[in-house]
Order: sequence, then structure tokens, then C-alpha cells
Amino acid sequence: MNPPKSLHLIANELTLVERKLLEPDPDRHQAVNGAIAHLFASGGKRLRPTVALLAFRLLQADPCTCGSCQRCEQGISLAAAVEMLHTATLVHDDIIDGALTRRGAPTLNASWSPGATILTGDYLFARAAELATLTGSVVVMRLFSRALMTICNGELHQLLRERHQLLDRAGYLQRIYAKTGALFVLAAEASGVLAEADSETLEALRVFGRELGIAFQIVDDLLDFVGSESQVGKPLGSDLAQGLVTLPAIYFLETSPDDERILNVVRGRRGREATQAALEAVRNSEAIELSEAEARQHAARAEEALLRLPEGDCRQALLDLADYAVNRQS
Amino acid sequence: MNPPKSLHLIANELTLVERKLLEPDPDRHQAVNGAIAHLFASGGKRLRPTVALLAFRLLQADPCTCGSCQRCEQGISLAAAVEMLHTATLVHDDIIDGALTRRGAPTLNASWSPGATILTGDYLFARAAELATLTGSVVVMRLFSRALMTICNGELHQLLRERHQLLDRAGYLQRIYAKTGALFVLAAEASGVLAEADSETLEALRVFGRELGIAFQIVDDLLDFVGSESQVGKPLGSDLAQGLVTLPAIYFLETSPDDERILNVVRGRRGREATQAALEAVRNSEAIELSEAEARQHAARAEEALLRLPEGDCRQALLDLADYAVNRQS
Repeated sequence: MNPPKSLHLIANELTLVERKLLEPDPDRHQAVNGAIAHLFASGGKRLRPTVALLAFRLLQADPCTCGSCQRCEQGISLAAAVEMLHTATLVHDDIIDGALTRRGAPTLNASWSPGATILTGDYLFARAAELATLTGSVVVMRLFSRALMTICNGELHQLLRERHQLLDRAGYLQRIYAKTGALFVLAAEASGVLAEADSETLEALRVFGRELGIAFQIVDDLLDFVGSESQVGKPLGSDLAQGLVTLPAIYFLETSPDDERILNVVRGRRGREATQAALEAVRNSEAIELSEAEARQHAARAEEALLRLPEGDCRQALLDLADYAVNRQS
Repeated sequence: MNPPKSLHLIANELTLVERKLLEPDPDRHQAVNGAIAHLFASGGKRLRPTVALLAFRLLQADPCTCGSCQRCEQGISLAAAVEMLHTATLVHDDIIDGALTRRGAPTLNASWSPGATILTGDYLFARAAELATLTGSVVVMRLFSRALMTICNGELHQLLRERHQLLDRAGYLQRIYAKTGALFVLAAEASGVLAEADSETLEALRVFGRELGIAFQIVDDLLDFVGSESQVGKPLGSDLAQGLVTLPAIYFLETSPDDERILNVVRGRRGREATQAALEAVRNSEAIELSEAEARQHAARAEEALLRLPEGDCRQALLDLADYAVNRQS
């Protein structure tokens, strides 16, 4: 499934977001300019800016799309800031995980020293904060800082969990909320703040962001079991190979808690054969369907929250996005 | 020389800053709470918050010191945010440098994995941003993000410089401006913004911050040659041992460009004997006096800038601080 056609609605704004992400700064070290060009050239779905732009337009009685007035500038800056923050976290994630490729392209840490990669990530955090100041809203800036805290907390929980301590479904949902949900919540809620939405609307936006982010991450985790390697852009079973236990494996262990194929991987036996055996075991079980159903359930909740927002093209595009989140192949 | 007595003026506010730095957050991973307690318990001079608090009070016609009204809260949040940002950069610096102690206490990376340390630093960046939002000023938030960019740029320049490429004095001043000056500028200028100072006052505050920061860093670098190990809290010659060429060595090389004792260290021969020989060479040269004179010159410029600000206790305390910066032994 390709991204929904209705996203063409904001094609113009997305181009301006892209331009803002790549905007040069004469004070910036040329290596950082190079890193920024590389990071944003290597793709990415721009889902978070898409959510921000659609929600912002949806909530305005008389939305402008000129791209250059103060209001448009606010929306575009917000969308760019969310994507910049997302990218900064990925730069540090890739050092921490020792990942050498992302979306098929080499990561920064694949060729740079850890020091230069850490500092570039820090620079991108600062740039995300600067972009967020262009919204002119202190409340939005506060949401940004809280979102980054949630992300860091979630990753620390994952990193500092005792070895071999298995996640249950509730723990998994907490983890992916922090990892992915928090930034979707930020994109949706901050748009509402800029559009001066009332508290009920803000609550609907938060629920939408959270549920969409969770649905999206469950599908990401599912694709590591049942996706096509060429479409996903990385070898299947990468999560298991890193000892990362995601929803399909958790469902599998609920019915087969003693299955050695998974337990081997959890306990650290992560050679190619062991990983393949675990992958096959989960793939041939009910766990896949159960996980798919759970993703659909969260997408449905996201859609339900949207129905509390004003009808129209933008709402339809967000509904399409929730549908896409659970029906995509990559 | 001990810190100036006039700093007692803001003793109450500094206690409140400390409390804010240590403020717990139920959503925070307990390891981060532990890290925060450790980082702020291991001392530090709190010079940046001191500058912020004194400048903020100095610029108000009728300054309040209750510590709890909105205005006091603004000043204390700003001071805490600057110190939190400073601390976050140190956490990442220590990973990058592989430093195992700071101010005599173990660094986070001495006992934590690089991943957990990176994430804790990221969390502290987010917390610094959140504290900055409590000032309620988007302009202040913008200054924060720009200051962090300057710091990261400076460190990247240092890290990515070609091996064996020697710094000259101009390059050194640029580096220490980014490393130390930028945060002193932030402390002083942001206070001016909160106090709604006019543009001439803001310019005086920037000059004061920059020159004080530079003077302070030159003395830090000097103490690595001529300080007392017990007072400085680390072995002398640490910079040279890491290949970091600071002002005394730069002055030395200006008159003795072929001196093998320094060139050995620059070229990577950094064993104990080679470092000691280089240390001795610089220590017994004019370079020390020249560096001291340069530090005094910057402190004098900082004092000159202060004379453009309103007279009184706070201005005197800031003058004392500039004096302390160049006359301290640790």
C-alpha cells in the first residue's frame, strides 16, 4: 500500500518543511551541514510533520496555505521541528545500537567517531528547539521538552532493564508509546495549541497521536517478522538478532512460554541460525494475527478520536493515514 | 582566593536554584534521578547561575528576593536552566574525552554504559529546555538553542581539526568562546531579556559574558600548568596529556616553534615523561606571564562593560566575580 493520495493536500507545505530542515546556517560546521543533507536525503516517511500539518490546517476556520504568512510559518516550523527532533533521537539511537545502516543508507556513526556523532545529535536537538521557538509558543516548547524526556526515559528503561527480564504486553506498550507515540502526540497536540484548540479537542488530538503512533510501531515490529526485506530495507529478524522482544514474540511466548527457539534468542544466543529458527517459530504461529489485530485496534481508536474533530479533507487525510499505518508493507 | 563575599547577596536564590536542579519528577527513570543527585552533589562553582541571578537583580528597578513570586521564579528558572544545560554538555564531553573523574568525583561514564550516559545527557538537555520554558520567554528559549549550537559547533571544530594542525591564538579564543564564553553570554543576556533591558544594555551584558567566560577559561587552562593538584582536583598537565593545546603552550610555541618537548606532545607522544618535559618547558617560559596578562585583559574588558550598567551591590558583586575569575587558585 502506498501512502494515501489525500496527503497531496499538504504537498506544498511538506516541500517547505523539507526546505526548512535543510536550511543552511553560516555558523554551522560544514560537517553538520553535510550530516543534515545526508540524514534528510536518505528518505523517511515524514509522517510526524504530515500529522502536524494536517492537524494544524484541520483546526483552523479559515486555513491559509500561502506558505509565507506568519500563520503558515508557524505550522511549517512546528512540522520541521518535530522531524528534526525525531532525527536527532535516531542519530543517538544508532550510536547506542551500533547500527550501521538505516533506511538502506549508512548511519553517521558508520563513518564518524562516536564523539562527532554525539555532538551532531546534540546540535540537531538544539536546532529542533530553535525551530520550535519559531512557533512563538512557550507552551509548544514545553511540549517539546517533555516529549524528549519521555523518549529518553523509555530508552533508559529498555537499556537498563535486567538482562533476560521479559517484557509483557503492558511493558511493551509503554515502551513503544515512549519510542514512537510521544512524538506523534507532540505533532498532534502542539498543532492544536497553535490553533488555539479547546481542551476537549486537545484531548482528542493526544489520543489520536498516541494510538496512531502505537499502531504504527506495532506494524513496524510486525514487518520485522513478515515483511519483505527489499521493501523494509533491512534484514528480517533484526530486532530478535539484537535481543529486542516485540509484540509478535510476546504473544508467542504467552502461549508457548517454554519454547526454546525464542528463549535461546532472549538469553543471548543470537547467531544466524538461532535467529532464523525463532523467526520461523513466531511467523508460523497465531502471534502474527494477534499482533495485526492489536495494531488495527489502536488504529481504530485513533480514527475514533478523529471523529471528534471537524469534518473535511484534512480529517479524511488523517483517517487515511491511520489506515495506511496498519496496511503498509514497508 | 575564595569566591567573593559579595556573592552572599544571592545566597538565598542560589539555594532555590539548587532545589530546582534537584527537583524530582515522578515520570523520570530512577537512574536519572540518581545521576542528577550525583552530578549536582559533586560541586561546581555555580558561576553561570550566579551571573544570571546578579544580572537579573541588577537590572530591575525594584528587585524582589522573595523567591516565590512570578518574577523571582523567572530568574531562578533561568539560572537553573543555564546550569542544567552546562551539566548536560559536561556529561557528553566526558564520554567523548573518556574522562573518568571530574572535580574529583567519578563521571557517569566511569560506571555506566555509553548508551545510558548519552541518554542521560539527552534527558538533561530536555530538562534544561523545560526549565527555560518556565521563564515564559520565547526569546530566552531561542538564546538557549543558539548557545547549545555554538557549543556543539566549537567542539566539532576541535574534534574534526586535522591531526597535528596547531591552533593559533585567534583559533584558541574562538574555541574557548564556544566552550565557555557562550554560556556566560547566555546567562547574562537572557537575564537582560527577562528584565526587558534596552539594546545597549543587552550589548553590554553580552560583552561582559563573553569576556568573563574567556578570562575564566584562560585561567582554567593556566591552572593546568601552574595550579596546585590538590586545589585543581586533577593531575597537572591533563590538557597536554590529551593533546589539547591551550594558551600557555601556544604562546610558548610562538617564540620556540621548534621546541621538541612541546612538539612531541602535539605529535602524539604523551607518556608521563614527555608530558612532564613539555609542562616544565612552558612553566619556565614567559608564556605563563603572557597568558596571565591576557586573562587579566579580558577580565578588564568584562569590568569595563559592567560600568555601563546601573551602579550598586549587584554590579559590585559582578566586578568581584571578574576579579575572582583571574585571581583564583582552583
